[in-house]
Amino acid sequence: MKVKVLQNILDANTQMAQKNQRLLDNHRILALNIMASPGAGKTSLILKTIARLKDKTRIAVIEGDIASTIDADRISDQGVAVVQINTGGGCHLDANMVENALNNLKLNEIDLLFIENVGNLVCPAAFRLGEHKRVVLLSVPEGDDKPIKYPMMFTESEAVVINKIDLMPLLDFDLDAFKRKVIGLNPDVEIFQLSAKTGQGLDPWLSWLEAELKSLRA
Amino acid sequence: MKVKVLQNILDANTQMAQKNQRLLDNHRILALNIMASPGAGKTSLILKTIARLKDKTRIAVIEGDIASTIDADRISDQGVAVVQINTGGGCHLDANMVENALNNLKLNEIDLLFIENVGNLVCPAAFRLGEHKRVVLLSVPEGDDKPIKYPMMFTESEAVVINKIDLMPLLDFDLDAFKRKVIGLNPDVEIFQLSAKTGQGLDPWLSWLEAELKSLRA
Repeated sequence: MKVKVLQNILDANTQMAQKNQRLLDNHRILALNIMASPGAGKTSLILKTIARLKDKTRIAVIEGDIASTIDADRISDQGVAVVQINTGGGCHLDANMVENALNNLKLNEIDLLFIENVGNLVCPAAFRLGEHKRVVLLSVPEGDDKPIKYPMMFTESEAVVINKIDLMPLLDFDLDAFKRKVIGLNPDVEIFQLSAKTGQGLDPWLSWLEAELKSLRA
Repeated sequence: MKVKVLQNILDANTQMAQKNQRLLDNHRILALNIMASPGAGKTSLILKTIARLKDKTRIAVIEGDIASTIDADRISDQGVAVVQINTGGGCHLDANMVENALNNLKLNEIDLLFIENVGNLVCPAAFRLGEHKRVVLLSVPEGDDKPIKYPMMFTESEAVVINKIDLMPLLDFDLDAFKRKVIGLNPDVEIFQLSAKTGQGLDPWLSWLEAELKSLRA
């Protein structure tokens, strides 16, 4: 009897992530996986983006946290659809959690979906969720050496956002050195520098989102 | 035939952590597991502590990083024994890695051992290394809501160090609210507030270390 050889089988998470992406594509939703250390400003960037885009773009958010609904509450206050995932100790979101969250959103009423991952510069990089783009935030107080110490997050992302640039004059952060390290790991990555708090530098980020939305609908 | 019932067997990591702790106890070495998000200032606090204590205390460091020897190089420059562990993607140190590092240190020449964990406010909390005390750093730019969102790190630690207090006047960090959240999770925890950069507030931290060293030797 011939032995069946099963080749190139995806792991369960990647399989489920592809299913999520097909669902999002069918609804022409642009999905972004937002990753960063705790306190780098993921929620603040999402809130500022909502404030600037919500008149012309229908936005929804999936919030990943180990515990609490603090971030989901802040987003819900802006009148945006939000689903909270509590991982209960888990250090990253996975595709199954996101599938459950998608089942709790009205997909016909969404253009742009932010998936805010658990605050962690390590584990989330290893798990696809079905997103179209992966965005890593690095805040200025964290220091410019992080791409060397946490390389996977930077090699796996399509965009790097340097946040809290309003603090740059007060801290020893070498912007050029940081960019060189990022580009060394990932030559095609988009790099934005902004302050989600003051709004400084937000326009190129918003233009990039709008271009990505347009190309998904073309 | 009677069935053997094996009860209360420790998991492999906890077993190995206890072995590490016995080894440290035999050499009267006080070991601290230093945990925090990336960029919170773990290495800076260790460097400042070395500068202040090295004339009277023999200090060594085990450096945990996913990749690179940036932090170990900074510590080695101070003339302190240091062993670098690269986890190669792993999001935390474990007791086996620390056992290997201990085998590469001259234990008879150490009073105080810092074990700097991988920058991650989630995973390191779940793995004992053999340390006597667990210390979590939280830097002011990360925000005062972190104990609610990452509770295990705060329930599992014996000391919390609030770092970068020199930035407090510039940021929305509610120190009293932060302390209330920490004490709510862990009533007996020690809390220090300092700036590893400026040296402000360092004395109570150093006094605590010296008291712990003395009690280990009593």
